[in-house]
Amino acid sequence: MKIQLINPNTSQAMTEKMAHAASAIALPETDIIAIQPQHGPMSIESAFDDVIAAAALLDCIAEGNQQQVDAHIIACFGDPGLDAARELSSAPVIGIAEAAFHTASLLCRRFSVVTTLSSTVPTTHHLLEHYGFRHLCANVRATDIAVLDLEQCAESVYQQLLDECWQAVHVDGAEAIVLGCAGMADMVTRLSEALPIPIIDGVSSAITLAENLVRLGLTTSKHGHYAYPKTKPFIGRYHHWNR
Amino acid sequence: MKIQLINPNTSQAMTEKMAHAASAIALPETDIIAIQPQHGPMSIESAFDDVIAAAALLDCIAEGNQQQVDAHIIACFGDPGLDAARELSSAPVIGIAEAAFHTASLLCRRFSVVTTLSSTVPTTHHLLEHYGFRHLCANVRATDIAVLDLEQCAESVYQQLLDECWQAVHVDGAEAIVLGCAGMADMVTRLSEALPIPIIDGVSSAITLAENLVRLGLTTSKHGHYAYPKTKPFIGRYHHWNR
Amino acid sequence: MKIQLINPNTSQAMTEKMAHAASAIALPETDIIAIQPQHGPMSIESAFDDVIAAAALLDCIAEGNQQQVDAHIIACFGDPGLDAARELSSAPVIGIAEAAFHTASLLCRRFSVVTTLSSTVPTTHHLLEHYGFRHLCANVRATDIAVLDLEQCAESVYQQLLDECWQAVHVDGAEAIVLGCAGMADMVTRLSEALPIPIIDGVSSAITLAENLVRLGLTTSKHGHYAYPKTKPFIGRYHHWNR
Amino acid sequence: MKIQLINPNTSQAMTEKMAHAASAIALPETDIIAIQPQHGPMSIESAFDDVIAAAALLDCIAEGNQQQVDAHIIACFGDPGLDAARELSSAPVIGIAEAAFHTASLLCRRFSVVTTLSSTVPTTHHLLEHYGFRHLCANVRATDIAVLDLEQCAESVYQQLLDECWQAVHVDGAEAIVLGCAGMADMVTRLSEALPIPIIDGVSSAITLAENLVRLGLTTSKHGHYAYPKTKPFIGRYHHWNR
Amino acid sequence: MKIQLINPNTSQAMTEKMAHAASAIALPETDIIAIQPQHGPMSIESAFDDVIAAAALLDCIAEGNQQQVDAHIIACFGDPGLDAARELSSAPVIGIAEAAFHTASLLCRRFSVVTTLSSTVPTTHHLLEHYGFRHLCANVRATDIAVLDLEQCAESVYQQLLDECWQAVHVDGAEAIVLGCAGMADMVTRLSEALPIPIIDGVSSAITLAENLVRLGLTTSKHGHYAYPKTKPFIGRYHHWNR
Amino acid sequence: MKIQLINPNTSQAMTEKMAHAASAIALPETDIIAIQPQHGPMSIESAFDDVIAAAALLDCIAEGNQQQVDAHIIACFGDPGLDAARELSSAPVIGIAEAAFHTASLLCRRFSVVTTLSSTVPTTHHLLEHYGFRHLCANVRATDIAVLDLEQCAESVYQQLLDECWQAVHVDGAEAIVLGCAGMADMVTRLSEALPIPIIDGVSSAITLAENLVRLGLTTSKHGHYAYPKTKPFIGRYHHWNR
Repeated sequence: MKIQLINPNTSQAMTEKMAHAASAIALPETDIIAIQPQHGPMSIESAFDDVIAAAALLDCIAEGNQQQVDAHIIACFGDPGLDAARELSSAPVIGIAEAAFHTASLLCRRFSVVTTLSSTVPTTHHLLEHYGFRHLCANVRATDIAVLDLEQCAESVYQQLLDECWQAVHVDGAEAIVLGCAGMADMVTRLSEALPIPIIDGVSSAITLAENLVRLGLTTSKHGHYAYPKTKPFIGRYHHWNR
Repeated sequence: MKIQLINPNTSQAMTEKMAHAASAIALPETDIIAIQPQHGPMSIESAFDDVIAAAALLDCIAEGNQQQVDAHIIACFGDPGLDAARELSSAPVIGIAEAAFHTASLLCRRFSVVTTLSSTVPTTHHLLEHYGFRHLCANVRATDIAVLDLEQCAESVYQQLLDECWQAVHVDGAEAIVLGCAGMADMVTRLSEALPIPIIDGVSSAITLAENLVRLGLTTSKHGHYAYPKTKPFIGRYHHWNR
Repeated sequence: MKIQLINPNTSQAMTEKMAHAASAIALPETDIIAIQPQHGPMSIESAFDDVIAAAALLDCIAEGNQQQVDAHIIACFGDPGLDAARELSSAPVIGIAEAAFHTASLLCRRFSVVTTLSSTVPTTHHLLEHYGFRHLCANVRATDIAVLDLEQCAESVYQQLLDECWQAVHVDGAEAIVLGCAGMADMVTRLSEALPIPIIDGVSSAITLAENLVRLGLTTSKHGHYAYPKTKPFIGRYHHWNR
Repeated sequence: MKIQLINPNTSQAMTEKMAHAASAIALPETDIIAIQPQHGPMSIESAFDDVIAAAALLDCIAEGNQQQVDAHIIACFGDPGLDAARELSSAPVIGIAEAAFHTASLLCRRFSVVTTLSSTVPTTHHLLEHYGFRHLCANVRATDIAVLDLEQCAESVYQQLLDECWQAVHVDGAEAIVLGCAGMADMVTRLSEALPIPIIDGVSSAITLAENLVRLGLTTSKHGHYAYPKTKPFIGRYHHWNR
Repeated sequence: MKIQLINPNTSQAMTEKMAHAASAIALPETDIIAIQPQHGPMSIESAFDDVIAAAALLDCIAEGNQQQVDAHIIACFGDPGLDAARELSSAPVIGIAEAAFHTASLLCRRFSVVTTLSSTVPTTHHLLEHYGFRHLCANVRATDIAVLDLEQCAESVYQQLLDECWQAVHVDGAEAIVLGCAGMADMVTRLSEALPIPIIDGVSSAITLAENLVRLGLTTSKHGHYAYPKTKPFIGRYHHWNR
Repeated sequence: MKIQLINPNTSQAMTEKMAHAASAIALPETDIIAIQPQHGPMSIESAFDDVIAAAALLDCIAEGNQQQVDAHIIACFGDPGLDAARELSSAPVIGIAEAAFHTASLLCRRFSVVTTLSSTVPTTHHLLEHYGFRHLCANVRATDIAVLDLEQCAESVYQQLLDECWQAVHVDGAEAIVLGCAGMADMVTRLSEALPIPIIDGVSSAITLAENLVRLGLTTSKHGHYAYPKTKPFIGRYHHWNR
């Protein structure tokens, strides 16, 4: 099966890192097609970035449709453009925040999210509420690691994350930890060995959930919320959506 | 004071209709600057349209900032891009759905929304939940009037709306009606005369709320959720946001 | 237009202070008619005070009706008697707590209320829940300033309020502050200059909201919750309601 | 023990009817002291009536305190003035709506309220929400029986009530019925025999709950919400509260 | 009347202690029949213990039915098997956690639960949510007293409880305290004298509530949720349920 | 990997049917170990049945632990004993109701549950609330098919189910359907072909979710809610738990 892994920011380095993590967990028969948009911000840290990235990644969804992928993954912890993507495609679309919350909810009754910039905390709270997982989340913690540092996997970054995770255990009473950033995928193993509770990564969770839906023969419902958008005139830089 | 009235779809006819309704209610000292984006869809009827329109209207917000407007209004009933717009500007930003709900909540304890396409109903429910008005909303009713018909103000459109409003009164027990589309602004007076309960229009509500905030000297909080977005590299069709 | 500003406690000094604040923000064409009941408590700091004051202020509403005012404002942060007042009049009725919450919700996603006596905190929580703003309120803080001291605008009162506001910013992560007492209206400007976030006052917010409804031609719905009360026998000290 | 049964409206006939129902269920050692205010409305059917009656019944609470009653009961289904009464007295205060909901929640997971005037329905919904019983209530049904007819126990009233109860069983799936009016107490036995599910009356429920608290030696907490009100000047018709 | 008091764990010492507390509050005409299951765990401190104890105590319910008891009480603070018991019997069934929450909600608007093992805290939160009392509960506090120590009523246990109660008052702002363990019943009087707020015990609360329902002639609704279970084959150690 | 599939009722025919459905979806490397308890009810249709079955299936969990299975599945739509099972084992435990809800929530925003006996409807509502999926569920529909008929896969059963599913589509506006009974697994394909929306089966969903957790190297958190139960004395028919 073909799974399209969309990194919604424009950093190719980040895309490659995610593709690596995704391939490590994917089934042998799964083909991971990693991609990032050719338009938009280098990183997503505000509602403004989120809106621009969402509009840009929809081009990737359309491209995936042409390639007849079996599922799409939106690999940014704010799940930008998820509902719009589900409208555009009948292949399942999974967001990595959503995927991580689902996984955590099967293993504990109280998790904390550990994320990078504090500016993304409101979005995470909004998603928890929207999906129905608010009652399981003890806290959303931000380390304020610069995304660039995260990309370079500095040892200091690992230590900051580890400290924040221990705070989650001791202060929040967290029974599991959800890593709130796609760029943390490569530290999961190390953190899992250092901490006594499950550490959950969205990218690998999303790969397995997407594979599940394909194996089960299930696709996004095209009745109601996720019906295909009506064709209509688009102008200017969105002229390519004119149909 | 200068209030920027943004029609997030690309229909200039719709912009003019709204500007007309807005001017009719605005204070003498208010200058309405009506605008629509130069990019994006002709109408907004799905999450897909919403994401594209949101990305496009942020250009208008930036333009408004350069013109030093005192407030911005997003005049589509889905309030697309509202949070992102609040990040970009310190001048207050008001969505017309939000404005209509606020107004209704001051006049009754149970209102129904009467809107056009049924594809917009989920968005309305999501907004009611997000803003905190769900407990006051009896029902969201869609008439499935084509937006083009709405634009031409056909008599049949008025009759359909009127019927749906009466349904809201008799079936839902609605004590007030919120019109769920910017394009209905010109029928408010007629509907108000025909029905025994308040009929609330988002555009005029938004104008008065925006004027209030300017008169009170209040601007969007730049601490927390609506802080200015960090500058960062943008590429491709969003290169103009590179700062 | 004529707006009746009702101070529900019996302190004329407080009424005058409010009338002053109200006139400062009102539109040129607005005539503020300030009044306080001739019966009831000197201040409102408990559910007991609230019930008595509510019964007393309904006389003011009736008086306003006779004067054909265009809107009524209940200027005590507990919004006493609001639903009953809306039944008695068709002119819109606005409570100042309600007005302040509406205003805050247009400027931020997380506000704190700073109020005087801790005995009023439960009422504030109840109102937040009732109106649907609980999710936006980070904290309700009481300074335990005596109302009399507040009336005299002592410098020490200002300092106490300012300290509490800074606590709201630093501890609660408040993005805006709602002042939870009509008697604080004269400190808004000073606090606004000292603090980096919006400071919201209920009296001025209520004036602008009341003016909006009048300008929009909207009145309280008389279907359902706010229908006129049935006439019936009243005895004793409420004999004047006998109709 | 002495239990004060307060009928908050001014109808002495209603007071006697309730006293009769109360005595039938009370323990041998319980002394029922039935009373109604000397001020206020003949019946309570709106928020307006509720506010006036609440202010009036507080005089009864004070009188009960002087008589050293062990508990107070507020015998109107809107529980008017309950919080204020709890502040004024340390003896427990029970509202009959509250009492009926508590009783119903011990016998089923889904009840309907059958009440008289439809104008009281919003109050009932508000109480269900406030107390935390909303999830157990399938429906609030109004028969629109005139209160006077109810007082005269006409056979037609019984038939209307019975029909509405059957509707609750068949349409709502009600597993129990709460009678939403103090004036229905004398029909409980007859309805209980005619219907296959529990019929719950507030007055008798309240008597037993009040007796419980007295037997358990428990009184209203005077810390926090229900602390005694501060003494302060009262003027006009409330001068007797001046302390 | 005959009330069956079921201690769901297998400690006869605990049963006797509860029976003593129950008899002290029961009406003269009430006959308390105390019992514990002949199968199951010595104490209930986890979901695992809870499931086993629930299955075991249903035998006691059946025995009570044969003895024609008028009501059953499940005297463990997790209310194990409550819904199943209500299906099996038409006589009312009361859980002691449920009973204590009902009692507390009549005396204050904010209580804390003080319990023993921290492993029981999640169950308590779940019950608060399920019954609808979450909004009234400030905190659930665990002292981690060993149940055996509790049984022996050591002075040190009393001091630990007292300290925790004071924490509830000062830190949580608790207005009343619910004791979260049937084994604490004998300390209620002492704690009540030492603390300025109501101390609520589930066993005595449950006795009075059960007596109420019997006096009111009310039994569990057999329509809907609590209908009798269908007869069907049972095998192995549950063969005695085969009917 | 070894996955233990527990049918919590004692019908071996049902176990075999489930094992068949499970094997059809499982990965090549997955070994399905299907089992049913040697004690308990032939079917689970009430809270009473649920409690007995939960106590009985815990023996299966212990047996699975000895066999070192990698995950357990509880294959009854009420998810009986799920929390207790998670305490007993460190291997992940998945309930089929939970699994089906998770799957549905990835494909639509509004699903209906179609189940057999109406007596199981309350349990389903309780689970939806407990897991956080209530906002996505339009309706829980019961067909009142006898479980025995279901076992024999009668054509009439299929027609009844199909009719109920169409009702869900047309009346509830369901965008997907969750089959609320393990015994329906063999009709999924046929229903999926007949209906235009996704049909979701709990058993196959649970298999894929359990495989995911094993592949991700994740196990149930043993901190907090799901810590191992303390060892303690058990007597009578639960003596084998004495440790």
